[in-house]
Amino acid sequence: MYRSHSCGELRTSDINKEVTLSGWVQKVRDKGFMIWVDLRDRYGITQLIFDEERTPLNVMENAKTLGREFVIQVKGTVIERESKNPNIPTGDIEILVQELQVLNKALVPPFTIEDETDGGEDIRMKYRYLDIRRNPVKDSLMFRHQVAMKVRNYLSEADFIEVETPYLIKSTPEGARDFVVPSRMNEGQFYALPQSPQTFKQLLMVGGMDKYFQIVKCFRDEDLRADRQPEFTQIDCEMAFVEQEDILTIFEGLTRHLIKDIKGQDITDFPRMTYDEAMKTYGNDKPDIRFGMRFGELNEVAKHKEFKVFNDAELVVAIAVPGGASYTRKEIDKLIDWVKRPQVGALGMVYAKYNEDGSFKSSVDKFYDQSDLSKWAEITEAKPGDLICVLSGQENKVRGQLSALRMELAERLGLRNPEEFAPLWVVDFPLLEWDEDTERYHAMHHPFTSPKPEDIPLLDTKPGDVRANAYDLVLNGNEIGGGSIRIHDKETQALMFDHLGFTPEEAKEQFGFLMDAFQYGAPPHGGIAFGFDRLVAILGGQETIRDFIAFPKNNSGRDVMIDAPANIDTEQLKELNIKLDL
Amino acid sequence: MYRSHSCGELRTSDINKEVTLSGWVQKVRDKGFMIWVDLRDRYGITQLIFDEERTPLNVMENAKTLGREFVIQVKGTVIERESKNPNIPTGDIEILVQELQVLNKALVPPFTIEDETDGGEDIRMKYRYLDIRRNPVKDSLMFRHQVAMKVRNYLSEADFIEVETPYLIKSTPEGARDFVVPSRMNEGQFYALPQSPQTFKQLLMVGGMDKYFQIVKCFRDEDLRADRQPEFTQIDCEMAFVEQEDILTIFEGLTRHLIKDIKGQDITDFPRMTYDEAMKTYGNDKPDIRFGMRFGELNEVAKHKEFKVFNDAELVVAIAVPGGASYTRKEIDKLIDWVKRPQVGALGMVYAKYNEDGSFKSSVDKFYDQSDLSKWAEITEAKPGDLICVLSGQENKVRGQLSALRMELAERLGLRNPEEFAPLWVVDFPLLEWDEDTERYHAMHHPFTSPKPEDIPLLDTKPGDVRANAYDLVLNGNEIGGGSIRIHDKETQALMFDHLGFTPEEAKEQFGFLMDAFQYGAPPHGGIAFGFDRLVAILGGQETIRDFIAFPKNNSGRDVMIDAPANIDTEQLKELNIKLDL
Repeated sequence: MYRSHSCGELRTSDINKEVTLSGWVQKVRDKGFMIWVDLRDRYGITQLIFDEERTPLNVMENAKTLGREFVIQVKGTVIERESKNPNIPTGDIEILVQELQVLNKALVPPFTIEDETDGGEDIRMKYRYLDIRRNPVKDSLMFRHQVAMKVRNYLSEADFIEVETPYLIKSTPEGARDFVVPSRMNEGQFYALPQSPQTFKQLLMVGGMDKYFQIVKCFRDEDLRADRQPEFTQIDCEMAFVEQEDILTIFEGLTRHLIKDIKGQDITDFPRMTYDEAMKTYGNDKPDIRFGMRFGELNEVAKHKEFKVFNDAELVVAIAVPGGASYTRKEIDKLIDWVKRPQVGALGMVYAKYNEDGSFKSSVDKFYDQSDLSKWAEITEAKPGDLICVLSGQENKVRGQLSALRMELAERLGLRNPEEFAPLWVVDFPLLEWDEDTERYHAMHHPFTSPKPEDIPLLDTKPGDVRANAYDLVLNGNEIGGGSIRIHDKETQALMFDHLGFTPEEAKEQFGFLMDAFQYGAPPHGGIAFGFDRLVAILGGQETIRDFIAFPKNNSGRDVMIDAPANIDTEQLKELNIKLDL
Repeated sequence: MYRSHSCGELRTSDINKEVTLSGWVQKVRDKGFMIWVDLRDRYGITQLIFDEERTPLNVMENAKTLGREFVIQVKGTVIERESKNPNIPTGDIEILVQELQVLNKALVPPFTIEDETDGGEDIRMKYRYLDIRRNPVKDSLMFRHQVAMKVRNYLSEADFIEVETPYLIKSTPEGARDFVVPSRMNEGQFYALPQSPQTFKQLLMVGGMDKYFQIVKCFRDEDLRADRQPEFTQIDCEMAFVEQEDILTIFEGLTRHLIKDIKGQDITDFPRMTYDEAMKTYGNDKPDIRFGMRFGELNEVAKHKEFKVFNDAELVVAIAVPGGASYTRKEIDKLIDWVKRPQVGALGMVYAKYNEDGSFKSSVDKFYDQSDLSKWAEITEAKPGDLICVLSGQENKVRGQLSALRMELAERLGLRNPEEFAPLWVVDFPLLEWDEDTERYHAMHHPFTSPKPEDIPLLDTKPGDVRANAYDLVLNGNEIGGGSIRIHDKETQALMFDHLGFTPEEAKEQFGFLMDAFQYGAPPHGGIAFGFDRLVAILGGQETIRDFIAFPKNNSGRDVMIDAPANIDTEQLKELNIKLDL
């Protein structure tokens, strides 16, 4: 038996017990006649003491050979500590060691196994198994497990059934970013890894499963932006005989439950906002509503003056920055530089200081008098002491730019408290979006999303105006979930494929099984999928998902620890009936 | 709102309530003035009644158009049923319908949606979404969910952390049956899908995760025997600071818990048996111990007589078939034919009837007298009335043949009660097994399994005799789990790779990351993996796994419903830098 207790377990009530502990050497303090060792395992740290007068000589000598991260087993007696450590639960006791066995030596680790490590991102990824020993990563992985258990238990009690859907499925041209898998047994043919279990969960609804969920890996072979992974985890859900309202209610419940259970916070307010409203008010379909700085549109009050920039713009839009009137000229110039960075892309920024004395001072005083500026203040809900920042240009672009500025300023002003949770439903998404590259409409969510019945006539006339029964769950400015009520009849599905530019043959070839299924008694149904990696990170108060994934890949999709992907044998390629084409 | 209640919910206490139900039309009985419809959903069946005198005329007429599997919504009043149906929980009530809406029509299903369907395997697979509506499949999937939840909650309470390991990993030549995935971003390189998360769970132990589990999909591209799937699910577990005994204890606990919780049965006996003992006693490393018919080896008593067949044989081995002495000559001949089938491969079978009067009658009376045969009876533990069946030949082969006969007879005699559970640990597996094809030793489990320390010297002299710290959990004649204590130091791992025919360079190339990890403080560790599909099927009292998998593949690895795998675009191949080589 390697241990009688864990390293996080012993207390003063255990004093005088003979115990066996195993773990890693966190730290050694060697005073010659006495040696202290912090012994670490997943559960905590326990101090060991080797004392010349009370520990056998050979054990004492052996202890002097210990280095960081050695794996050892000790036997000894729990004694009261002289200088107690109130920072750890075991801080009142220590183990007076009688026996020591080195279970495994350790080379000096390439970075320190401490909460604040000296290791950079790359080295920590290469030695991820060492990085996982650090509390920030270890705790994140344990937290992830707890969240998954809570989700499963909640949904299971709500009558959801977790069903495993297949990983080896079929590639579709819509899925240009599918990972594919050559089949040895079916020569020249390929499986695809699922970007989501979408069609399978719909088939489960056709199959009468009624309420389905799955915490499931999904795959997307796309150029990785920071904080995206080629394999990611979803909480995937689907329900039959539901309308949008039913789905929102159930998953509001789940969200409230998680935030209550994990953070002890009651979500009193769970607002909803249409996509249009979100775009107009926050310039963003996933607004962070923990803070204000809502957009004020100034077209009516700022156009038709002498200022050509605004007159030429499709949209003039502004936010009020709390306390910004005190910014120096230099600070404001830096802000202007910030919005002009290529990542944001504004051509410039107009500002107006709303001074504490009620007067205004703007960068466009030439064109706008105090009365004009007071209207700006009214529309942006600025208070004395605020700074009104105004951007102008093409509607969609300028909203995106102002949204970026709003988030940046909130960050700087400390308004994005990671321990505060403000969920929001964004509803009534457009069904279709215009793709400049392919010059046609694409499904904004996916081709199975149902249009609002009253908007169907617009499909032929103004496709971009058709609203979908689609919704996103936004938490603190992150889209953590998205879903829709699906099409459940063959005719509407065919109409949809038609509008997406599929020929009937293509639609049948790729999704014939689903359209067939719709003919055999498909119930109305809908669902939602949560990005689990992101959800866990946000609940954990973090902005990045990487610490919440045990073995993440880097931005090139590589696992630098195992060095994958890698070359494979010609023989193996031959068996798969493929060859390289570089 | 599509429904106020499910179809399994209403009771006499609900009489007079106005309710809304939605579901599928299971059955219509149209008597003209009255129509009864069985309405079905996941939760049950509720009878609807349309009555000329009490149901509006237009609803009545609409009801006459209903066909099997139509999806409908009804509103009506719960009333007491005249002829109650005690077979279903809702059998005391029915719904007097006032409103009817057809939510979706249905074509006539290609097979009946009944417990006993008229559909063959192929058609049910093609329309799996309809097959899932049938209770046997639906209940199996729900049962699987329940088992998964119980496993997760049990392990989680035992301090195990579920950690998701990556699906896109690295192919190794050892993994000749890897599915591979071309990487678009890393030209000419491939990921592999995991055959198991073996190395990752070991790295989690090196990382201090201490107790890990995961219910996880694994992949193996091999010729599919019946009841194997290219993607399958494992309960994968690993623990640090453990010896074999710790693992057996924990997973005995899990097994007991599941059988108690699901079947209400207390497993009092959880025997262990060495691999050698299992092979000698049952001819099989996964013996079904729900019944006897243990092997008796007859070499000492049956050789050195005049009977050349036995004299030439390496092993003469027998079982006693309960009550078999009453078999007719014809029945015995059929049994002999059975063992001579190519699938079994025996050249013949000798038998001896142990008559009720204590006398013997054998097929080899010429060579063996009553005293000889009574020794056979003693060794095989035969009782008067039994039939002793004797096979002979090469040791391994004949054991396999007799094992097949034993299982077949047990099946015929009804000794394999699916509601009885008899788990067994088989321990001390050989470390290596000789592979005739490659003419070298292979790891019987995998190259990370630790040899018994006392057997290590045999690696050079008698590699086949080296025992591993490896164990299988057998349930009712099925291997449901297997694992080992792993190697945790670089030297032993290198020794192992050496004996498996790896050059040091190959070992480093493929498993360098693991051997590196062992140098940075790897704890002793070990684990186990359960075949979840099989476990669920056995707990569900079934022999085949297919009903317990939502969307299984056929024996050619095809999903016949979605028609995968499939051809993919030349353009897509081009992007992946591969081309077909047929």
